Amino acid sequence: MADQPIRVTVWHEHVHEKKNKVVADLYPDGMHAVMKAGIEEYLGSQVKVGTALLEQPEHGLTQEVLDNTDVLTWWGHRAHNEVDDEIVDRVYKRVLEGMGLIVLHSGHYAKIFKKLMGTGCGLKWREAAEKERLWVVNPGHPIVDGLDEYFELEHTEMYGELFDIPTPDELIFISWFEGGEVFRSGCTWTRGKGKVFYFRPGHETFPIYYDKNVRKVLANGVKYVAPRTGSPYSLKAPNIDKPLSPINSTHEVDESLHQH
Amino acid sequence: MADQPIRVTVWHEHVHEKKNKVVADLYPDGMHAVMKAGIEEYLGSQVKVGTALLEQPEHGLTQEVLDNTDVLTWWGHRAHNEVDDEIVDRVYKRVLEGMGLIVLHSGHYAKIFKKLMGTGCGLKWREAAEKERLWVVNPGHPIVDGLDEYFELEHTEMYGELFDIPTPDELIFISWFEGGEVFRSGCTWTRGKGKVFYFRPGHETFPIYYDKNVRKVLANGVKYVAPRTGSPYSLKAPNIDKPLSPINSTHEVDESLHQH
Amino acid sequence: MADQPIRVTVWHEHVHEKKNKVVADLYPDGMHAVMKAGIEEYLGSQVKVGTALLEQPEHGLTQEVLDNTDVLTWWGHRAHNEVDDEIVDRVYKRVLEGMGLIVLHSGHYAKIFKKLMGTGCGLKWREAAEKERLWVVNPGHPIVDGLDEYFELEHTEMYGELFDIPTPDELIFISWFEGGEVFRSGCTWTRGKGKVFYFRPGHETFPIYYDKNVRKVLANGVKYVAPRTGSPYSLKAPNIDKPLSPINSTHEVDESLHQH
Amino acid sequence: MADQPIRVTVWHEHVHEKKNKVVADLYPDGMHAVMKAGIEEYLGSQVKVGTALLEQPEHGLTQEVLDNTDVLTWWGHRAHNEVDDEIVDRVYKRVLEGMGLIVLHSGHYAKIFKKLMGTGCGLKWREAAEKERLWVVNPGHPIVDGLDEYFELEHTEMYGELFDIPTPDELIFISWFEGGEVFRSGCTWTRGKGKVFYFRPGHETFPIYYDKNVRKVLANGVKYVAPRTGSPYSLKAPNIDKPLSPINSTHEVDESLHQH
Repeated sequence: MADQPIRVTVWHEHVHEKKNKVVADLYPDGMHAVMKAGIEEYLGSQVKVGTALLEQPEHGLTQEVLDNTDVLTWWGHRAHNEVDDEIVDRVYKRVLEGMGLIVLHSGHYAKIFKKLMGTGCGLKWREAAEKERLWVVNPGHPIVDGLDEYFELEHTEMYGELFDIPTPDELIFISWFEGGEVFRSGCTWTRGKGKVFYFRPGHETFPIYYDKNVRKVLANGVKYVAPRTGSPYSLKAPNIDKPLSPINSTHEVDESLHQH
Repeated sequence: MADQPIRVTVWHEHVHEKKNKVVADLYPDGMHAVMKAGIEEYLGSQVKVGTALLEQPEHGLTQEVLDNTDVLTWWGHRAHNEVDDEIVDRVYKRVLEGMGLIVLHSGHYAKIFKKLMGTGCGLKWREAAEKERLWVVNPGHPIVDGLDEYFELEHTEMYGELFDIPTPDELIFISWFEGGEVFRSGCTWTRGKGKVFYFRPGHETFPIYYDKNVRKVLANGVKYVAPRTGSPYSLKAPNIDKPLSPINSTHEVDESLHQH
Repeated sequence: MADQPIRVTVWHEHVHEKKNKVVADLYPDGMHAVMKAGIEEYLGSQVKVGTALLEQPEHGLTQEVLDNTDVLTWWGHRAHNEVDDEIVDRVYKRVLEGMGLIVLHSGHYAKIFKKLMGTGCGLKWREAAEKERLWVVNPGHPIVDGLDEYFELEHTEMYGELFDIPTPDELIFISWFEGGEVFRSGCTWTRGKGKVFYFRPGHETFPIYYDKNVRKVLANGVKYVAPRTGSPYSLKAPNIDKPLSPINSTHEVDESLHQH
Repeated sequence: MADQPIRVTVWHEHVHEKKNKVVADLYPDGMHAVMKAGIEEYLGSQVKVGTALLEQPEHGLTQEVLDNTDVLTWWGHRAHNEVDDEIVDRVYKRVLEGMGLIVLHSGHYAKIFKKLMGTGCGLKWREAAEKERLWVVNPGHPIVDGLDEYFELEHTEMYGELFDIPTPDELIFISWFEGGEVFRSGCTWTRGKGKVFYFRPGHETFPIYYDKNVRKVLANGVKYVAPRTGSPYSLKAPNIDKPLSPINSTHEVDESLHQH
């Protein structure tokens, strides 16, 4: 592929670490630092990873940062409503233009995810530290490269169906939970030229982002949603006055109508 | 099926008729009147059809009207921005809860359609009164019941790809245009419990809604997107504290974390 | 819809009942009799249900029987290889032409299912009489009409992913199994004009077809896959010598090439 | 990605060249030679391309050749029925296990394509040397990398809908034909671990495989369907006697039933 490294921005709400000792102890430098390390562990010089936080000006997502981001990862939970609508629109536009987006765990309720999905994005949940087993249901997919047919997380928060999303373009993982639920834990969608990958694991009070399988999926995901040149795309609706092929119609056209 | 008639509300912007003599002459009682008649022509006592207009209080879409609507059809063009966001949210919520929605022609840029799709919804266009031929690509689908393998509209506005939509759950029609473009003219998506059907024809300066095939598709569409009882659905994200099956985990759960 | 009842043929291998006392005790008149009763329980005069068995001439699926079948249900396990290829081809052709097909449980390995899917159709399995919980993931779908958000089967054979099928057009149920697996238990596909519905439950040594939810799904499925008139369909590849629109090309065509 | 080149085998029926002077003049070394050159033109050392012909022993597709093929391209027309069923089964198995397959033009009726699709695979056709314009409808897809929003072929055989295929996982091109038809000209499906890409252009009496856009798509396609390691896959249906998680069920299991 390209010789240029994939430019990744790890976006993090960074709220729990400041309020909850369990989280702070697990992630002394913030969850974003561990996600960054996880991606770099597998991709090395294939990526150049930066971070951005809610607390920063423009949430760290200035136009310049986004223009220089190929793949954005998103973790949020408590502070979804504190994300500025203008920044959400900015990210949205970049996704349509081709930037890859990886939405993690409680990011299912992030403004940007709901805006891209067009559905409620709700789900069931339970914090009982139960076991999760993620089954691969798309074994040839690049995102599962190097995985076994399932992997387990010993203690997780449960997310259960109904997960209120549009039919995924690709369903990659289905989770089994000890307490009795199932969940579509790995899904992709195309929006404009951009690819969106939702990946379920990531509860802040468990060491999820230290798990080697989770990190592998994250790294595979970065490579998968990274943009190609593709063919032209525009958010405009262009008028094509001159037909490409001859029109034999003899209908009288009222020129006053030519406005859209 | 059910003995109750399907309750349809035909929503119309109703702007062109007041400003353009061609449109006024074609649709002296408004396009909504002709759409209503078209649906009734094929479905008779199977439907009960009302209309609602932008100019009415709450655009004619009060909570009561929506609560008593099974299928909403939507035609808009010039005045998309005049539709109140609160009404859009109200319609959106009803679609997720199961109300069927049929979006017509220039409604591709309606707020409600963009909100449900999560994409830019742009397209190419040309007003040259050219011929359109709509090919059926899903011959067993209820929406094409009674059609031939294609039908033609002698004079139409052209809509061309790229149509910036998410992958349709079902692709039903592809249009050929005399001037050289193609278009995915009939598409469906599921959003929450609701079905959305986009149908391309409907330019205001041509007698499109008098065409028997267009009317047949409209009627078939009403039946197709009409809601079923289905299984439970909620826009909430419920906590399921009590597991359905026993959890053998021995992990200590910090109760202070139990907040979502 | 039509006033005519849907003509259903319940096809059954009918082998286990003769060899295994448990099955014979559960289904003294054969599983097909109970499936038939289940469909009739919910659909009454909306259906006319017949049965056909492997042991009958042409497996009970003569051309005449198939020509008068709107929906075929298929249960097989031990004797997949005893089904005549000619009969499989006959069923296949009818599905493409619009007959609905419901494939049940171990029918995942039936010749007709593999031929329609184009994949291996394998899965994992275990007979440990464990609990299965089927979660609805498509709450507005006609097939789940009248169900709750999940239903349970106290004792079932387990089927686990990877279920080697093409991406379903619609995913309706995901099963949770006590022993740790998940499964896409309700899926639909379109093939030609026909709809195919695979529904997992149905192990012969448990009273699955007496379960009210299973019967409800079976009845809903019959209504869902029943054919419409639709638009024309042909298994031929017709030559369309005369173009529908004028061709301005000036290329010399070698007439000797006109053979496909 | 991998440092190893993608191993491509270009399979060709190689019949028309021997019977038709037009074809022989266009492709003096056979169409396969030109396809090979086209792939190599864009991918250079990223690929290692071999060819295989119907006329060779085992049609050039020995088990060894297939075991050393990452991507197989397939062109056939007159001699579909001369392809040995055993070879078809061999290719089929390799696709499910992960080998990429690119089916070209009249290959829509090849045994291997029909077996993988599970449908009739028919279409309409006309040889009138008309113009074809292929529109990109998936602008971020790797297969359209480097293309404009459409490309044209001045003289082609027409293929028209209904193209009797299962819903593609991805729809990439829609063709417009001068004579009035449309066609889904670029489609992908997943089968087992393998990716299948159907690409329409390729009529033998026109210089299609010399066209730079066609060659670019072919090269992009090779990269897209090339297999990854992925996660484990098996054509077997394994019994998983030992549950992954404890089963609390108390049901008596009759051991004599444990046979699948």
